[in-house]
Amino acid sequence: MFSQTTEYALRAMAWLALSPDELVPTGAIAERTLVPEHYLAKVLQSLAAANLIKGRRGVGGGYRLARRAEDITLLDVVRSVMVVERITTCPLGLPNHGPNLCPLHRAVDDAAKAIIDIFGERTLRDLVAAPQQNKPLCNSQITASLTVSAIGRAK
Amino acid sequence: MFSQTTEYALRAMAWLALSPDELVPTGAIAERTLVPEHYLAKVLQSLAAANLIKGRRGVGGGYRLARRAEDITLLDVVRSVMVVERITTCPLGLPNHGPNLCPLHRAVDDAAKAIIDIFGERTLRDLVAAPQQNKPLCNSQITASLTVSAIGRAK
Repeated sequence: MFSQTTEYALRAMAWLALSPDELVPTGAIAERTLVPEHYLAKVLQSLAAANLIKGRRGVGGGYRLARRAEDITLLDVVRSVMVVERITTCPLGLPNHGPNLCPLHRAVDDAAKAIIDIFGERTLRDLVAAPQQNKPLCNSQITASLTVSAIGRAK
Repeated sequence: MFSQTTEYALRAMAWLALSPDELVPTGAIAERTLVPEHYLAKVLQSLAAANLIKGRRGVGGGYRLARRAEDITLLDVVRSVMVVERITTCPLGLPNHGPNLCPLHRAVDDAAKAIIDIFGERTLRDLVAAPQQNKPLCNSQITASLTVSAIGRAK
């Protein structure tokens, strides 16, 4: 339903949220998210343009989240690559409709509101912090290594 | 949020639902929906391919709904031009996820479910039959003529 670009942007951000303390090279993000690297590079540019990630070029370069995972909602991510807005006035410009949407545009607006609510109430941290749930993008091996790494940090 | 094609398909179907007893020429639909005629022609082809409208070529030709307005949901219309499906298994094919979606794909699936629910529970008849609401695509003049026509038919 959502574009491939939207899905890829969400995957990339989920992976960066799992590695919040490091610069992750584009190639490593591509490998984990199963996104072709040249396509991913464009998605990362959009995310950087929206000030959601910061990059550094060259050896040892890569991308990291621009702010804490709990301060970035999925809606922020989705909006970096597509327009998600409520309908506030008749899209056809009919003066007798104006802000009193007809049932057609009321339905489209209800759908927009639902998307905004669902993606707006969840942060990147919510994706990676739930202990009882699968980690995004992670097979069993990676999940185990993340757990070890988290235990290591907690010590 | 939805594509222009989706918006145009919904407009065209709303207009046909307002004129259920007649074949409406493409040019007349284009004029009322404010959609460029060559673009609209492609949208109408998609709607016909999905068996939502029927057309007749030539003089006096045009399009009409293929079944009653109460038997066509907005979801039927939206699905004629875009894919709207629930996520039932991990899009990355991770075997340890499978049908147990991670929080990222759970969120995307929640959004898909919301869209399916909102558009699935409303029919074309709901768009045009509510007496207290604006008619889709209709300025004051057209609304008045529809009312007169409805009174005429009721006599």
